[in-house]
Amino acid sequence: MPLSPSELEARLRLHALPGFGPRRHRRLLEAFASASAALSAPAAAWRALGLPASCAEARRSAEVRQQAAQALAWLEQPQRQLLLLGEPGYPALLAELDDAPPLLFVEGDAALLEQPQLAMVGSRRASKPGLDTARAFARQLAGAGFVITSGLALGIDGAAHRGALDAGGRTLAVLGTGLQRLYPARHASLAADLLAGGGALISELPLDCPPQAGNFPRRNRIISGLSLGVLVVEASPSSGSLITARLAAEQGREVYAIPGSIHHPGARGCHQLIRDGATLVESIEHILEALRGWQNIAPPQPVPPGSTGERHPLLALLHAAPQTSEELALASGWPLARVLAALTELELDGMVACEGGRWLGGNG
Amino acid sequence: MPLSPSELEARLRLHALPGFGPRRHRRLLEAFASASAALSAPAAAWRALGLPASCAEARRSAEVRQQAAQALAWLEQPQRQLLLLGEPGYPALLAELDDAPPLLFVEGDAALLEQPQLAMVGSRRASKPGLDTARAFARQLAGAGFVITSGLALGIDGAAHRGALDAGGRTLAVLGTGLQRLYPARHASLAADLLAGGGALISELPLDCPPQAGNFPRRNRIISGLSLGVLVVEASPSSGSLITARLAAEQGREVYAIPGSIHHPGARGCHQLIRDGATLVESIEHILEALRGWQNIAPPQPVPPGSTGERHPLLALLHAAPQTSEELALASGWPLARVLAALTELELDGMVACEGGRWLGGNG
Repeated sequence: MPLSPSELEARLRLHALPGFGPRRHRRLLEAFASASAALSAPAAAWRALGLPASCAEARRSAEVRQQAAQALAWLEQPQRQLLLLGEPGYPALLAELDDAPPLLFVEGDAALLEQPQLAMVGSRRASKPGLDTARAFARQLAGAGFVITSGLALGIDGAAHRGALDAGGRTLAVLGTGLQRLYPARHASLAADLLAGGGALISELPLDCPPQAGNFPRRNRIISGLSLGVLVVEASPSSGSLITARLAAEQGREVYAIPGSIHHPGARGCHQLIRDGATLVESIEHILEALRGWQNIAPPQPVPPGSTGERHPLLALLHAAPQTSEELALASGWPLARVLAALTELELDGMVACEGGRWLGGNG
Repeated sequence: MPLSPSELEARLRLHALPGFGPRRHRRLLEAFASASAALSAPAAAWRALGLPASCAEARRSAEVRQQAAQALAWLEQPQRQLLLLGEPGYPALLAELDDAPPLLFVEGDAALLEQPQLAMVGSRRASKPGLDTARAFARQLAGAGFVITSGLALGIDGAAHRGALDAGGRTLAVLGTGLQRLYPARHASLAADLLAGGGALISELPLDCPPQAGNFPRRNRIISGLSLGVLVVEASPSSGSLITARLAAEQGREVYAIPGSIHHPGARGCHQLIRDGATLVESIEHILEALRGWQNIAPPQPVPPGSTGERHPLLALLHAAPQTSEELALASGWPLARVLAALTELELDGMVACEGGRWLGGNG
């Protein structure tokens, strides 16, 4: 059931509060029945939750109301959606993160966010061969059925999006700015091509948020959080791509890295990742191999309630109690990436749902 | 105590028997008190050990006697030695192998075989950058105090020997032919330079054994068996270097591999090794890091029997019973490479000895 217009507006107002990140947002929603209830609660109740007085004061400010109104106006145009954590349509893998974005602005096809994605990241100042490699891998991976997710940045990101488009595949760009402040400007036509190709642009930031250095590393957790794995193509050891790769590993995602000559500085970040446990990748076969679970899982047959049909192993596990994907990996003995892939498929089939960071079997 | 001349001649005769490999040699020596006793035992006793009748028959043949006599004549020249498994001077790490060579012909400084060695192997048809890389690594590793052990082959082997010589370091060549049949002929001057630089040539094969395809893979087990680790520089996936690397891993040695571009066929073997668990190496620091144990172990202080001085942890473990290096690694919690390095140092100090594949604490 979709949210009421007033609750939607209340969520947007919470999101517009200055200094109000995903954890505070979640804390408030958990404490109150709704964002509307949170907004009308006494300031003392907010202070009791450890929220600064400034937040409670800003709730009714003209600025916050105006930002929510702008977002609602933006949403009236076609091909624009707002996905809310805990509501239908929010990508299930992303919902598992402790700091999952409370809301995501989407331009383009929001259904894309629920399809199996591979993230590709790398240096903004990549070499020509590095760019060619990124584009070729993206082309092949898109051809193999993956949505290619990246950050619309110059360098490897751009080559990854282009490669997916070459193959007639779909690609998703997670911005580190608001959707109305596309950055870098040089990639405006890439963004247009990406949308024309059935892709999507997404951002957790207010629509008019300009480029700010601190927002890019936070954006990276969304890129990896949406994906089954992250492929790093070319990166210096101090590169932001290495942050993305480390976040990905912490999130239980597979990390893949492409090696290069020891005399090529752009290969050093990838080599460091491989030394730290990332999978060395020479061809997409090495990635498909690692994610074989995703390919081998037959589309689950819908099981009518009360039927005695054979159940998907993960559904059997979820029958007992809601679980995190890590718990499911432990219980099933499957690699985490395979569990995540299977959950993605099961969710598309409406067999499971993710609520509050745990998975529930829909037809339990 | 050195072997008697007649026992030495008897060992050489056993070694000269057609179809008589390390395991049969060991079986006979374990069954009889000496090679002389084995040679004079009735043929039925040999058959009872599962040895073919042809071996027992060949014992007194002119050919076998002549080969032993030739070896004894060869040994009369300076700088030539014969090392016998189980006798002093035989390299301790090599003695641990199940199929350790029963004897080794050495030309040059045999003491070198007991020093900490790093093996370097790779393609015979390496690229120019690959050869340069091999030579640079060998130069730096020799400068760091390692003996560089390789196979005198064309390509990476030759570059490794040359690199060690560049640094004024010492280098050891394990041949896949007899020492009187140096192969490839093109490397005769490299072999001469290696000897002039205080290095050594070694072979387990009869002195006049010509190049035979089957002997080179068997030679590789000696290269890795002598060494703390094996560095693979450039190798195709079907390369003999990969066999050496796999043998090394089975022997508990560290395997290091240098990555390269995914478009360079010569890097594929190294990439395969890294995917199988070898350490990706960009600089010698990565090797020194992995072998830090070797550097951190302070030279053991001689402990007079009965003294209460603090004992080396491995000596304490060996006090209880003779152990293999794997058992010591388990008991000490040290990585195997560190145990092997420590044992090498302790053996040079006369504190431990390897007998029948197990280590004994000399001053227990």
